Amino acid sequence: MRRVRQNRPQPDLPVIAGNGLIDRRALLGRGAVIAGAIGVVAPALATGAAAEPLADSPWSLQVGDAMPPYQVPSRFEKGVVRTVDNPDNLPRNSRARTPHHLLQGIITPNGLHFTICHGGVPDIDPDKHKLVIHGLVKRPLVFTLEALSRYPQTSRIGFVECGGNSAPLFSNEPIQANVQALHGLASCSEWTGVLLSTLLEETGIQPEAKWIIAEGADAPHASRSVPVAKALDDAMIALYQNGERIQPGQGYPMRLWLPGYEGNMNIKYLRRLKLTSEPAMSYYESRTYAQVLPNGKSYRFYFLQEVKSFISSPSPGHLLKEPGYHEISGIAYSGTGRITKVMVSAERWDGGPAVLQSRAWDEAGNVQPTRAELVAMRGQTSKPASVLAFPSQHFNAVTSWAVDTKGGVSHVYA
Amino acid sequence: MRRVRQNRPQPDLPVIAGNGLIDRRALLGRGAVIAGAIGVVAPALATGAAAEPLADSPWSLQVGDAMPPYQVPSRFEKGVVRTVDNPDNLPRNSRARTPHHLLQGIITPNGLHFTICHGGVPDIDPDKHKLVIHGLVKRPLVFTLEALSRYPQTSRIGFVECGGNSAPLFSNEPIQANVQALHGLASCSEWTGVLLSTLLEETGIQPEAKWIIAEGADAPHASRSVPVAKALDDAMIALYQNGERIQPGQGYPMRLWLPGYEGNMNIKYLRRLKLTSEPAMSYYESRTYAQVLPNGKSYRFYFLQEVKSFISSPSPGHLLKEPGYHEISGIAYSGTGRITKVMVSAERWDGGPAVLQSRAWDEAGNVQPTRAELVAMRGQTSKPASVLAFPSQHFNAVTSWAVDTKGGVSHVYA
Repeated sequence: MRRVRQNRPQPDLPVIAGNGLIDRRALLGRGAVIAGAIGVVAPALATGAAAEPLADSPWSLQVGDAMPPYQVPSRFEKGVVRTVDNPDNLPRNSRARTPHHLLQGIITPNGLHFTICHGGVPDIDPDKHKLVIHGLVKRPLVFTLEALSRYPQTSRIGFVECGGNSAPLFSNEPIQANVQALHGLASCSEWTGVLLSTLLEETGIQPEAKWIIAEGADAPHASRSVPVAKALDDAMIALYQNGERIQPGQGYPMRLWLPGYEGNMNIKYLRRLKLTSEPAMSYYESRTYAQVLPNGKSYRFYFLQEVKSFISSPSPGHLLKEPGYHEISGIAYSGTGRITKVMVSAERWDGGPAVLQSRAWDEAGNVQPTRAELVAMRGQTSKPASVLAFPSQHFNAVTSWAVDTKGGVSHVYA
Repeated sequence: MRRVRQNRPQPDLPVIAGNGLIDRRALLGRGAVIAGAIGVVAPALATGAAAEPLADSPWSLQVGDAMPPYQVPSRFEKGVVRTVDNPDNLPRNSRARTPHHLLQGIITPNGLHFTICHGGVPDIDPDKHKLVIHGLVKRPLVFTLEALSRYPQTSRIGFVECGGNSAPLFSNEPIQANVQALHGLASCSEWTGVLLSTLLEETGIQPEAKWIIAEGADAPHASRSVPVAKALDDAMIALYQNGERIQPGQGYPMRLWLPGYEGNMNIKYLRRLKLTSEPAMSYYESRTYAQVLPNGKSYRFYFLQEVKSFISSPSPGHLLKEPGYHEISGIAYSGTGRITKVMVSAERWDGGPAVLQSRAWDEAGNVQPTRAELVAMRGQTSKPASVLAFPSQHFNAVTSWAVDTKGGVSHVYA
């Protein structure tokens, strides 16, 4: 996952005088200058050098708070949270979405990594959790967390994305929702753990083994089939996320991490890997992620999350307060190679209607499709009443944000 | 900051039978094999394939918990916290140290980033906080957080380390403390913000400006002098840490980040940058970090945190339960270039006394000194009663851990 930004000239700034009051003349004056100037550095606006002494705010005049053993964000950031769609923990799926419109950078902080659970978040005692590797192996083995800690571990920064992320964009009409609701089921962490290939060297593999059935320890015992080739390539038994033990929402105490593969396959609370000659044809691989395409073929066992990008700022809910340069930032990632290029459609807002789009390329030569291209390939499947339930998966096409003449941002198809 | 691990053969594992019970014969059998074998993959120990059905733990039989809007670690990780040395917030310095012995990977999670404050952690309203840039500039300017958000931002992963980190190792006798107490004043994040050079393009710089006096908004108004050259190189006004707004302990809502420079210079709660022709000779630069060396010269204005590494696992407090291979991991970083090599002294524990050491090199050709070399250069300054207060700074020499015949780990000079 790569955070991308437009590389462009300096933006215009609301410059504020040294006394802390907004200099209205400066703002108005710059507004006039900006309207006719593109690519000019913000004009020099003397605001007076009277900064001695600086006025003290209340927090500059008193001793601050004690340090907590585990830090949390400022109370002023209480709005920077995941949206949870099942707060009463009713007996159905639960999702918590990452607020990309409020974040910057590549790493998603652990507190805000997206989560999907099909039976709530289990409370697992790590000392009692075990990982079994069996089936078509030479030596079936059981690993405790302590045993795993004695193997070489690897760290790698990478994304996890639900196959259903962005599914609302299959709707016939653009759903009016923010980037958290539309694209919030993707996050990025530094994952640290033991490569599965290391453990498979311990167990050995029988020649007829082609698939590995991964199963979680939470109540649904979610299971998915993973090709042995992927397991031997870069699959990881992830134990740590951004330095600390992976959090309960991410599979504590261990999850399968399959870089670039749809989130559902990255089985959390991993308790079993069974090597087999055939796939399990489990619920998620035979139904949810195996949709029928317009040509009658099935999208079955196509696991890769393809090249994708979206603009997170500005995005719906943000307001451009005045014309001029505005930082455009977003996220790009691909399951098929590193991002090599991202193009962004606009760099400056002149006060009129505008459309913002981003489009990504990866090193394997894949290019993010337009929405029209993707819908033609996959079929436009629904016009649902809610953004929360879509039958279509693997949406990776271009997202378009419209900026209106008041600086408001909305979701459009363009 | 780079997390380093020994690249070596597979370790021996406490293999557990499929029924969940430890196979004692296997353990004993392997113990005998290990004693005479180095570099051999763990022997093939059939444990029986009877893993159908897997026994269900309580969390596999019930619905889990609801998802919180902001995730926190599992309750089983409650011991993974910073050690705070001023929990009652008495009117003195406060430190919170990172538990490196319990972490893996390069990123320090935000909850566990080290913090030092000289007047507690201030509770700053970001909408009322401003950054003034004035002095020897052409256009003194004041930036709100909203104004800063319109400039191009940059992300970079890098460490911050207190100049006093590891100071207990200047003691005449090795202090018996764990890696958190000895080296816990260093952490690593992805920092995102506006390059200071971008803002200085806006203000302009008068030719006689050589220094920038950075000042914080917390009660001590801590200030340090930064060379203009560093400000124009890679200094950042950091706004985000691992994706979210920087936390109160790291300078919310903004801090100065000077990659590779001693932590104290990375002024938190940044409210002012004043360009001057002379340094401020503030408290920390004229006293604390300007120690007199044995040759009579002063260590003044030597800001760089030099090449360093330490082993975090195993380290004091850990126990090697049996001979054989044990993952050795640690951290290496340098303010003078990327880490190019780390050597580790031991790769296998044969049950006898052993010493573990790591030594790092960086791309600028710098090598981590031995402790004897460093002490000879700097002077061995004290034998204090507490690990919490040392007059010596910038300790970057090799750390040595001794493993005794029972697998216990202690701090030694070797």
